[in-house]
Amino acid sequence: MAYIELNNQLPGITGLLENRPDTGAPIRELTQILLRGESTLTELERELIATLVSYRNECRYCTSAHAATVRALGGTEDLLEKVFHDPGEAPVSEKMRALLAIAAKVQRLGKEVTASDIEKARASGASDIEIHDTVLIAALFCLYNRYVDGLGTYRPEDPAYYQRLASRLVTIGYSRPKDGLARKGEELYK
Amino acid sequence: MAYIELNNQLPGITGLLENRPDTGAPIRELTQILLRGESTLTELERELIATLVSYRNECRYCTSAHAATVRALGGTEDLLEKVFHDPGEAPVSEKMRALLAIAAKVQRLGKEVTASDIEKARASGASDIEIHDTVLIAALFCLYNRYVDGLGTYRPEDPAYYQRLASRLVTIGYSRPKDGLARKGEELYK
Repeated sequence: MAYIELNNQLPGITGLLENRPDTGAPIRELTQILLRGESTLTELERELIATLVSYRNECRYCTSAHAATVRALGGTEDLLEKVFHDPGEAPVSEKMRALLAIAAKVQRLGKEVTASDIEKARASGASDIEIHDTVLIAALFCLYNRYVDGLGTYRPEDPAYYQRLASRLVTIGYSRPKDGLARKGEELYK
Repeated sequence: MAYIELNNQLPGITGLLENRPDTGAPIRELTQILLRGESTLTELERELIATLVSYRNECRYCTSAHAATVRALGGTEDLLEKVFHDPGEAPVSEKMRALLAIAAKVQRLGKEVTASDIEKARASGASDIEIHDTVLIAALFCLYNRYVDGLGTYRPEDPAYYQRLASRLVTIGYSRPKDGLARKGEELYK
């Protein structure tokens, strides 16, 4: 049970987005553009940024959801383990290591990012738009994690829930299903 | 100069929103709904939440911009001073004190908000939607502050800049001016 009364029984962010569709719509749209829109970063790379930030914000719902999405996109347990605990050694490109380092700083505080962090990313091949999107994805998950935990939303324990959610995030993405998430949710999220 | 190349010379968030209008549009829309949409919280009260969070995230651009907006909406220096340094003693309603306390916790980490913080807000008259919007406004400014500082955007020193910006945020709000902010910006932000 969330701290406030919702118009549905959906867990985590899904219940919040359905509860207030007017604010839910732009949040979904921004996420769809950043995580599924055209980009030279792969969906797996963008989901890794989301997962790292959620983990560092100690948001268990979002961490479980996006770690499951990383797995659904082909990421291994070893990759996740390294990204969480030793991102400098993660089995990703040098560019991604530099971008993950920026995301980790954004998670703490925007002003921790320095010109030299940006130079490092650029030197390993990151473009301005990749740097931009890394910062904005990290900032967006600082919003999500606080929204989900600040309202005390319900968090399922069953790993199968996160696998079903991840499968939806891989095949459909972050847009609202046309027939309504609440109804779909009855099947998806129970 | 921001860390990345922008398509304009606008400072702070304004340059970022113009630089990538596809992500800028949903960010503006969400802000307009939360800070200027229909609500039982006044615009001043909602701007106070934004200002407190920006201050605690040490984002000088956003703090200056929203403190100026609080002033433009009739808030005093004493009010701002108390909200920054002694929010429990701020000259606001008991309900707003409870909501500001929730916002301050959201700024740190979503999971810091407890059922007893929510109960306190409710006991002082806060509705579920007011609690929801407080959490989401605080979370949104955790995004903004990181976006603005994480990309090292330019921050004007001149207080007159923030007064002009605040005047626009009070009269027009957060939507993109129809004739383009970039052009308007040439007048507004120089």
